[in-house]
Amino acid sequence: MSEWCIGIDGGGTSCRAAVATSQGQIVGRGLSGAANILSDPPTARRHILAAAEAACREAGLDPAALSSMPALLGLAGANVGTVARDIAAALPFRESEIVSDGLIALEGALGPEDGTMAILGTGTVYLTRRAGAVRTLGGWGFQLGDQGSGARLGHALLQESLLAFDGMRPGSPLTAAVLCEFGDDPGAIVTFARAAQPADYGRFAPRIFAALEEGDAVAADLVAAAARQIDQALDAAAREGTAPICLLGGLSQAYQRHLAARHRLRLAPARADALSGAVSLCVAWQRGLADPAGS
Amino acid sequence: MSEWCIGIDGGGTSCRAAVATSQGQIVGRGLSGAANILSDPPTARRHILAAAEAACREAGLDPAALSSMPALLGLAGANVGTVARDIAAALPFRESEIVSDGLIALEGALGPEDGTMAILGTGTVYLTRRAGAVRTLGGWGFQLGDQGSGARLGHALLQESLLAFDGMRPGSPLTAAVLCEFGDDPGAIVTFARAAQPADYGRFAPRIFAALEEGDAVAADLVAAAARQIDQALDAAAREGTAPICLLGGLSQAYQRHLAARHRLRLAPARADALSGAVSLCVAWQRGLADPAGS
Repeated sequence: MSEWCIGIDGGGTSCRAAVATSQGQIVGRGLSGAANILSDPPTARRHILAAAEAACREAGLDPAALSSMPALLGLAGANVGTVARDIAAALPFRESEIVSDGLIALEGALGPEDGTMAILGTGTVYLTRRAGAVRTLGGWGFQLGDQGSGARLGHALLQESLLAFDGMRPGSPLTAAVLCEFGDDPGAIVTFARAAQPADYGRFAPRIFAALEEGDAVAADLVAAAARQIDQALDAAAREGTAPICLLGGLSQAYQRHLAARHRLRLAPARADALSGAVSLCVAWQRGLADPAGS
Repeated sequence: MSEWCIGIDGGGTSCRAAVATSQGQIVGRGLSGAANILSDPPTARRHILAAAEAACREAGLDPAALSSMPALLGLAGANVGTVARDIAAALPFRESEIVSDGLIALEGALGPEDGTMAILGTGTVYLTRRAGAVRTLGGWGFQLGDQGSGARLGHALLQESLLAFDGMRPGSPLTAAVLCEFGDDPGAIVTFARAAQPADYGRFAPRIFAALEEGDAVAADLVAAAARQIDQALDAAAREGTAPICLLGGLSQAYQRHLAARHRLRLAPARADALSGAVSLCVAWQRGLADPAGS
């Protein structure tokens, strides 16, 4: 068993690494750029390596030591095709275990316990662990899924703004502000939508929650409908019971008080972040306690 | 004033033309291929001409006579940019007046009376005439509009199928059939959606109405929600009153009995088709009774 191990949290915005002892005590951290293994594997590989080397240096270790360390990487897109296997083969670690970004977040949030994690951000996805078995629900993306996400909220707001323009549904100060922002030209909203990515819609989400606080009726309806969808997802993911529910993601705070009491009563703060989860999974894997990729 | 005039109904599937007397009596008809002035103006021009020449021949007239006839054309996309003006300049008619496809459909459906026309097909759009003034509502397209359309219905069915797969919402025989069709692989549905055009979603709509007849609960919910959106649109378009409401488009029959009684009581069959509407508008325009493009 190696003296050190390394955990990696790689996503579309940045890549973080932590070198830890074989008992899981973190001794150095490193940060680099995006590690998007689906859209740009070579850059992802480079940034994974850069973060790992920086973590070594912070730990006072020669980056050459990486070749003797086991690494556990939680990467967005790890479940698609052979991408993860290809990346693993191109990394310099002693051995590389690649799991989804959701799994290391779950491990970080819950520790070794059963429970449910909901990521409420630009998209939405739910992971739940019961007697050690992990199940993923949702996460099908903006086009047909991600109900309750920031992207779907923003999309719904633009829809309501067009309906208000036509007098088909009641408008509000918020829909009036949106129309004004597009020069009171519904065609400009349609043009925006033609090129919009989920994150472009998602940028409207904080304004919807802000308008809700100011008593905006359309904002209240949109959030209530989205919260009902999240409640339904939690009913499926968390089922009945007392196991904790952790909310993560940029909208987790905003949604909290809008969820049903049966879920609110079970909410618990995350124990640790996804990077810590990667380190914990790496330690367990090395001890033969877990088969991360198999769970 | 010319002895003859010509009306044209040009759309994305076909182009139809009718030569009529100056009193509006149709004496010859012609049919040709798609006249999509947005995506392929040269082909549109050729098909407009082919339909007009065929109408001449059926009327026993030399196609050379077209150069002495006024033409009124109802063309999809006529309201976008300078496309209509460019096409008009390239046509051989004595003079060409180009209006939207909706306007000739409205004229055909209502004749000279006030009233409302709803087109319920792959998309949805509403035209209403009050004291001669025509207003268009909706028609913003699949991405942010077209509530109640076949495309939106089909899209909603795929969403419900994914939610049923995850146990987040109750499934039904219809969602089970959809999942089965995609090999019980939600990823295959997501892949389909990535490339799907509105018409691809719209192809699920007839099955939703068929399942509804067989008591399918998800189909009933989807149609009820869509019918409520159409009711709201008709509230805005038709307002209170007794003026007739004409439903056109591939789903108009299917939706009829699901609409609110306040609208059902006003439903009236279309008086004539869009091609007849183009001829009527052409006659009125030539008599100086109407300024079609200005309405």
